[in-house]
Amino acid sequence: MSNIKIAILGMGNVGTGVYQILQENNEEIYKYLNGDIEVEKILVRTIDKKRKISIPNELLTNNYDDILSDESIKIVVELMGGIHPALDYIKRAIKSGKHVVTANKAVMATYGKELKGLAKENGVFINYEASVGGGIPIINTLMESLAANKIEEIIGIINGTTNYILTQMTNYNMSFEEALKLAQTNGYAEADPTSDIEGEDAAFKISILTSIAYGINIPSKAIEREGITKIHKSDIDYASELGYKIKLLAVSKRCKDNIEIYVYPSLVPNEHPLASISNEFNALFVRGNAVGELLLYGKGAGSLPTGSAVLADILSVARLIKNNIGNDKNKNDKFNDIQIKGIGESQYYIRLQVVDKPGVLGKIAMTFGEYDISLESVMQKGRGEETVPLVFITHDIEKNILDKALDEINAYDFVEKIATILKVENI
Amino acid sequence: MSNIKIAILGMGNVGTGVYQILQENNEEIYKYLNGDIEVEKILVRTIDKKRKISIPNELLTNNYDDILSDESIKIVVELMGGIHPALDYIKRAIKSGKHVVTANKAVMATYGKELKGLAKENGVFINYEASVGGGIPIINTLMESLAANKIEEIIGIINGTTNYILTQMTNYNMSFEEALKLAQTNGYAEADPTSDIEGEDAAFKISILTSIAYGINIPSKAIEREGITKIHKSDIDYASELGYKIKLLAVSKRCKDNIEIYVYPSLVPNEHPLASISNEFNALFVRGNAVGELLLYGKGAGSLPTGSAVLADILSVARLIKNNIGNDKNKNDKFNDIQIKGIGESQYYIRLQVVDKPGVLGKIAMTFGEYDISLESVMQKGRGEETVPLVFITHDIEKNILDKALDEINAYDFVEKIATILKVENI
Repeated sequence: MSNIKIAILGMGNVGTGVYQILQENNEEIYKYLNGDIEVEKILVRTIDKKRKISIPNELLTNNYDDILSDESIKIVVELMGGIHPALDYIKRAIKSGKHVVTANKAVMATYGKELKGLAKENGVFINYEASVGGGIPIINTLMESLAANKIEEIIGIINGTTNYILTQMTNYNMSFEEALKLAQTNGYAEADPTSDIEGEDAAFKISILTSIAYGINIPSKAIEREGITKIHKSDIDYASELGYKIKLLAVSKRCKDNIEIYVYPSLVPNEHPLASISNEFNALFVRGNAVGELLLYGKGAGSLPTGSAVLADILSVARLIKNNIGNDKNKNDKFNDIQIKGIGESQYYIRLQVVDKPGVLGKIAMTFGEYDISLESVMQKGRGEETVPLVFITHDIEKNILDKALDEINAYDFVEKIATILKVENI
Repeated sequence: MSNIKIAILGMGNVGTGVYQILQENNEEIYKYLNGDIEVEKILVRTIDKKRKISIPNELLTNNYDDILSDESIKIVVELMGGIHPALDYIKRAIKSGKHVVTANKAVMATYGKELKGLAKENGVFINYEASVGGGIPIINTLMESLAANKIEEIIGIINGTTNYILTQMTNYNMSFEEALKLAQTNGYAEADPTSDIEGEDAAFKISILTSIAYGINIPSKAIEREGITKIHKSDIDYASELGYKIKLLAVSKRCKDNIEIYVYPSLVPNEHPLASISNEFNALFVRGNAVGELLLYGKGAGSLPTGSAVLADILSVARLIKNNIGNDKNKNDKFNDIQIKGIGESQYYIRLQVVDKPGVLGKIAMTFGEYDISLESVMQKGRGEETVPLVFITHDIEKNILDKALDEINAYDFVEKIATILKVENI
């Protein structure tokens, strides 16, 4: 058996990319595998639908059992997205002794541990490179290239939608709403952008990377997160004056006794490579105790980049199949029992709107002082308007202490509101 | 057999790093392999030598035959550097049926094709991730993660010494000589820095990457190259005024009928991520027809980062050994028969020193015009001195035509010299 037969579930954006790559790059694929990848069946909802690419009709089915019962199919490639019915389809594929390749972050973040266990029991592999960072080979890098490292830190810009929005706000002085609308027009944000802009998507992805890097299983719901909806374009300007760019960061750090994990809009120093990651691009910054700093940057979404990662998974499993290697049931993939916590001590950027009168800054600074919060910089902007912005960058402080101080400050009658709280990530 | 036994050849900088990682990260290694890596023998020149780390005396030998004749040793890890005797040792290891992991760029660039063939004949693997980019997993990324891509372009900052020197010249207004001296003091340049500053080291590395990306074998001597010794600090300033940073780039591009390959000091637009790669860091920018743009950035040298890459190779081979997989003798690794060429049409940065008198610019511009060389920008600097710099950026032009025009320009009596010619890499 020289060729490997696969089935694809879903012919949307990524499915189309995978199919296209299989056609266009078949020479490269053959060279890697010394054989071909043959698409034997494609599961779609509607068979008679006009598609972007032409697919022979006999490949299409809307009955998953056609795929499960076909013993020639060795790999099921799940590209439907969402939990249902993808989760069920993946489980049934595994139980039928088929290897699985998936791009499904929601499934892997939520049921990854269970599925990996099930796959091992059944002697098959489940690969999911495309679930994080699109075409960026972050999972393979963590699992293979950094296998001999203790991972100390992962800091990612892993949501293209929010990075696109923040870039537009930064470069073209747009408001959040304007930038979101542009992102939707250009296909970088969905009609319902909630999961992206509220940081849920990034939480899924950092949960997956954390499970690989530290061997712990963290439901994405347990991850402290904050989206980008409260960021005002003035915050971007103030950050810029202070030498920072604002990025939505997904962070997972190994501390002494626990793992610090969160998704939070943060100020990144201009000199750091993460600050220069623009638009829909993604980047992963990894620190390992041997390799030191490593950064991977590329397209975090899109039909062909994501398809490239799916194909890498398919090829890697296909080569194992050709070598008669199954997943090792006896291998001890024990998950670690490390506690997680949210944000630890950190610097913060705070923008208040206050009435412009003498003594206000003094009163606020004193209140910070009472909570032992020392300040790295203070910036007062505007004059004579009803309220003016007052921007602080604190030194390291626990968030709950900061919150108490801010509650007290918020109660002053000259404080209109605590407008923005951002993290400062001094990497 | 649960553990895999290896021998290390050479206990210098990288060897020490590998040994240290094996000690410190043995938990991670065990987790990957479900077994240990045991160092059975270490080949050194002098056995009784004070070393940075303590190594049990019984591991050390100065007789390579001790290693070759020990059948328990499955992998020979060559970390001596240089062609001789490393090449011979690698060949003998392969012929004895031992797998090889090497960090040797000179050997792989010059004898890679031969060694890969020999390894296949003998059913063993030869892995060489650490030969390019230190800890950056560029080879694994090209071979595995981008396996389903047609690689279109590789642009690398792959020599840490020159990048360190250029960064010092840029950030601290140093001359080349001052920066080189600092690099030597800080251990980023060798006593004889020729191979680095003349681009030979980068040529080795781009030759290796080209052989992986395009399946062609290019002796590094055939690669057009230019070092950084002619760059004056004023060039860095003018480039900066024009919106560029100067970097020594190693480039390999797939053109219609051939591969364009060269190492050349080049202007990189400030907005491009490669422009922000500073000091001793390396970066590789890859464009694939599916993945799009991908950039990998990290430490291109150093004991532990390079050791991390060596360990990744060891682990990957060790896992294959445990699965009883040898190199497939029947696999057709045919090398492509593509022609290579040097730099194709390109923009150039040119600095002339000319006498400051009326009509000079006109005469030079007209000469460019006669050769159909159009100019993107012209910058005249200084006044009243004996000679003043005149800086041009051309539009795309073949180098041989540019050279002819410059020969003619150089003959004018008001031209003191053609001071600098740099490439402009408009990525």
